[in-house]
Amino acid sequence: MDKAAPDPELHGKRHRLHEVLFEADTRAGKAFDVALLVCIGVSIVAVCLESVTSIREQHGQLLRGVEWSITVLFSVEYVLRMISIRRPAAYALSFYGLVDLLSILPTYLSLVFAGTQTLLVIRALRLLRVFRVLKLAQFVGEAKQLRAALHASARKIMVFLFTVITVVVIVGAAMYLIEGEASGFTSIPHSMYWAIVTMTTVGYGDLAPITTGGKLLASIVMVLGYGILAVPTGIVTVELAAAGRKRLVSTQACPSCSAEGHDTDARHCKFCGVKL
Amino acid sequence: MDKAAPDPELHGKRHRLHEVLFEADTRAGKAFDVALLVCIGVSIVAVCLESVTSIREQHGQLLRGVEWSITVLFSVEYVLRMISIRRPAAYALSFYGLVDLLSILPTYLSLVFAGTQTLLVIRALRLLRVFRVLKLAQFVGEAKQLRAALHASARKIMVFLFTVITVVVIVGAAMYLIEGEASGFTSIPHSMYWAIVTMTTVGYGDLAPITTGGKLLASIVMVLGYGILAVPTGIVTVELAAAGRKRLVSTQACPSCSAEGHDTDARHCKFCGVKL
Amino acid sequence: MDKAAPDPELHGKRHRLHEVLFEADTRAGKAFDVALLVCIGVSIVAVCLESVTSIREQHGQLLRGVEWSITVLFSVEYVLRMISIRRPAAYALSFYGLVDLLSILPTYLSLVFAGTQTLLVIRALRLLRVFRVLKLAQFVGEAKQLRAALHASARKIMVFLFTVITVVVIVGAAMYLIEGEASGFTSIPHSMYWAIVTMTTVGYGDLAPITTGGKLLASIVMVLGYGILAVPTGIVTVELAAAGRKRLVSTQACPSCSAEGHDTDARHCKFCGVKL
Amino acid sequence: MDKAAPDPELHGKRHRLHEVLFEADTRAGKAFDVALLVCIGVSIVAVCLESVTSIREQHGQLLRGVEWSITVLFSVEYVLRMISIRRPAAYALSFYGLVDLLSILPTYLSLVFAGTQTLLVIRALRLLRVFRVLKLAQFVGEAKQLRAALHASARKIMVFLFTVITVVVIVGAAMYLIEGEASGFTSIPHSMYWAIVTMTTVGYGDLAPITTGGKLLASIVMVLGYGILAVPTGIVTVELAAAGRKRLVSTQACPSCSAEGHDTDARHCKFCGVKL
Repeated sequence: MDKAAPDPELHGKRHRLHEVLFEADTRAGKAFDVALLVCIGVSIVAVCLESVTSIREQHGQLLRGVEWSITVLFSVEYVLRMISIRRPAAYALSFYGLVDLLSILPTYLSLVFAGTQTLLVIRALRLLRVFRVLKLAQFVGEAKQLRAALHASARKIMVFLFTVITVVVIVGAAMYLIEGEASGFTSIPHSMYWAIVTMTTVGYGDLAPITTGGKLLASIVMVLGYGILAVPTGIVTVELAAAGRKRLVSTQACPSCSAEGHDTDARHCKFCGVKL
Repeated sequence: MDKAAPDPELHGKRHRLHEVLFEADTRAGKAFDVALLVCIGVSIVAVCLESVTSIREQHGQLLRGVEWSITVLFSVEYVLRMISIRRPAAYALSFYGLVDLLSILPTYLSLVFAGTQTLLVIRALRLLRVFRVLKLAQFVGEAKQLRAALHASARKIMVFLFTVITVVVIVGAAMYLIEGEASGFTSIPHSMYWAIVTMTTVGYGDLAPITTGGKLLASIVMVLGYGILAVPTGIVTVELAAAGRKRLVSTQACPSCSAEGHDTDARHCKFCGVKL
Repeated sequence: MDKAAPDPELHGKRHRLHEVLFEADTRAGKAFDVALLVCIGVSIVAVCLESVTSIREQHGQLLRGVEWSITVLFSVEYVLRMISIRRPAAYALSFYGLVDLLSILPTYLSLVFAGTQTLLVIRALRLLRVFRVLKLAQFVGEAKQLRAALHASARKIMVFLFTVITVVVIVGAAMYLIEGEASGFTSIPHSMYWAIVTMTTVGYGDLAPITTGGKLLASIVMVLGYGILAVPTGIVTVELAAAGRKRLVSTQACPSCSAEGHDTDARHCKFCGVKL
Repeated sequence: MDKAAPDPELHGKRHRLHEVLFEADTRAGKAFDVALLVCIGVSIVAVCLESVTSIREQHGQLLRGVEWSITVLFSVEYVLRMISIRRPAAYALSFYGLVDLLSILPTYLSLVFAGTQTLLVIRALRLLRVFRVLKLAQFVGEAKQLRAALHASARKIMVFLFTVITVVVIVGAAMYLIEGEASGFTSIPHSMYWAIVTMTTVGYGDLAPITTGGKLLASIVMVLGYGILAVPTGIVTVELAAAGRKRLVSTQACPSCSAEGHDTDARHCKFCGVKL
């Protein structure tokens, strides 16, 4: 048997496996996705609980059991994905391939190194696997629309971010000059942190102006922040509206009166009645 | 007299009662709604005041008087509703039926159990009864439009919430690693709480980064929060605009194929081409 | 000379006076408006400075001088307005008439009563006079558009406020139950204050949940606050867009092809070219 | 050789220099822009680091080296710009000319005066040079659209700011009366600072109401702040949408009356009726 004609039975099995693991059209594929979501959820809850000292001390045994069970399941899944796909190298180096690897590696590494916090935190990246499931499910259209809106406004957002950074640097420098070390504005980067906390209207209050001049500048920055906050909202709204409109109006022109702007479900021109 | 022909006089009374209690078209129905609103308002104010220690000690007698008067009124109303409606079981198990029951139960239970805080708080749920009145009144259209806008964007909002949760988990885990226990980031769930407080721009300041790395990450999260905050606003705005535009779609049905949903400027049916 | 034919010279003077005081079309009227704005500004600054203890002690004499000068000017203006207008009683009882009276009364009253803080604060209401000037100036159109947008969405805003109040009461009551007196949630009204501070994303941090349950509820309220914050923005945006559109598209239909949606500056139908 | 015919070779060199320094169409111009961006970035980072006491003490020598290198480069660039441009005086007095001068002056002045904080902060203004590069690059369209949106809504924003200032003054004065010195509301300007911190939803918490009356007023101001926050967002969104729509207006000019601004669906000139 030459290489060009592989075992057809093996080929069929691989194809079925691919369908289950990577697609969500079949029943088995959907069931697999739901199972995956549950596993990810359980695993993330375990990571969160393990970081709480009192729970780790009491239920450490149980949490480690859950962790190893899920790691074994994910490892099997990783191997099966490698087998079922035609170009395993491309998958292994893709974004989701790396996330899949990062989902299982920390647990194995914890055998070698003492179970440090860093490994715990890397395990939290497992949550990114959720988006693979989203990609397959019925949310494609919605996610695509949101992404298209963000993409279309990327340039405007960059101009906006540039402006914000400039304001942050200059306001931060001015505040450092006005308030000085006594109020806690010990350096320009520290003042810039305050400027960001203020302009995003988060306002922790761990750093706040004390002098009259500082309060005046802070007030101006806050009112300015009103307008600055409005810009990204405006941009995203307009792009979302445009993305929504595109779905609804077809680009078809009437063959008789060449009127445009017909709905996508229209079968006759709404102005002259001719068949589109 | 057989069952199929009930006492017509009783039937009429029941019908009138139903009109007063459940509808707002008649004069009596409107008057009843206003009285109900006043009772709910007085009752909620009483609940709030009773929770203030100093007021409870001074005016406890009065507050208990108000509470019992309103409970008796609500009980009578509950019984009348049960009588006037055709299928009392369905009403008792409906959302508003349960709210109505929860409005009277705590006061009676306080006779058995010592008047605990829990019963006091359940009494606050009484406020939900207000929405029954809104449902009947002239706000139907407005509320429907708001609800339609939220419903239409439910999927986009779910994708958005998923993204927010993912960012919260990963940022929380990273912050737990960077800041550590010394700054108060004692566990991943606790850091996630910080991430939510920051990304929603609430910013209590009970938990704030102290290290330079933590402040840097916090700054990035805040600026990111700008964009994230813009998405739900954009979604709701676009849906509200779409809901408003639907009023621009004419209510005319095609005389030939009786299709609906034509634009107001359409002169021919967009499905069969017949003149409208 | 009978009553029906008043002194024409006096009538002319009164008319000119009315023009200067109440209108902004003439040169004198504009100059008067600018002078009024300056006086109001100076007066408000004086009120603010007088409330600062150290400045009041040092420059009290000067501030009282400024205050009396402006009060005398405003008094003269008030009397002239009374004379120039046809129905002085209607003016005196109108909103701006009362504001004008409140602008001069506190200073005279301070002769009788010792200059209390209350009188100082009432003097700050003087700032409302600014809107009279705005009303006359070129901002009419803009202000009208903003007001129309708010008016058109008044009902939706009421439904929204009702929902917010309900959420505030129920969340406040629940938080009072969960956190209790130990964390500072000493009563339901106090917890409701916390709920408002949180849902509006102000987040002072003077009151913050301490227990795990409280933090969980707070997190849910904050993410919910995202959506709630989006609703008024969406409503106002849609109404502003509608108000803006009304200006641009005329309601004129083409007399030949009866097409609609022409720009307000169009003189010919954009579809068939016939004169509109 | 007379003055009217200058050395053509020198003229050509000057033209090439102008192209590199002021334009971004040629390859050399683009390379220069990138180099400028890197220099500005390095310089700003150096300014920020120099303000941190510990870094200044350790790496002061290095930072001063970087500072002088960049100052020399910027000085050479400034001189070349002066040479290459036709009207050097106009350039020197333009906004970007002054920014360019402010970018090099502080370092030279630090030779005369002891290197004060003020000079350090002025050096941060260097960041404004970034916008010159933006002006030349592909962001022109985006920046123009953002600026047009802000410009078109300038009047509405002024009315809005006026309203905000009035609310701030009156709420500030009322809060000063209600809370008094005991809660830290020591003067009206100080209370106005609190009002701004609250209405912009920043909420540091350095100043918060303590009395019941103060908390009630604060709650009302916060809920009011919802609506107030919505207005600038709505304004900017509508203007951005309008700016985006203008792209939908065709660039076609009427062949008869050469009027522009026709809708893309127009078939006849809307001013003279001639077929487009």
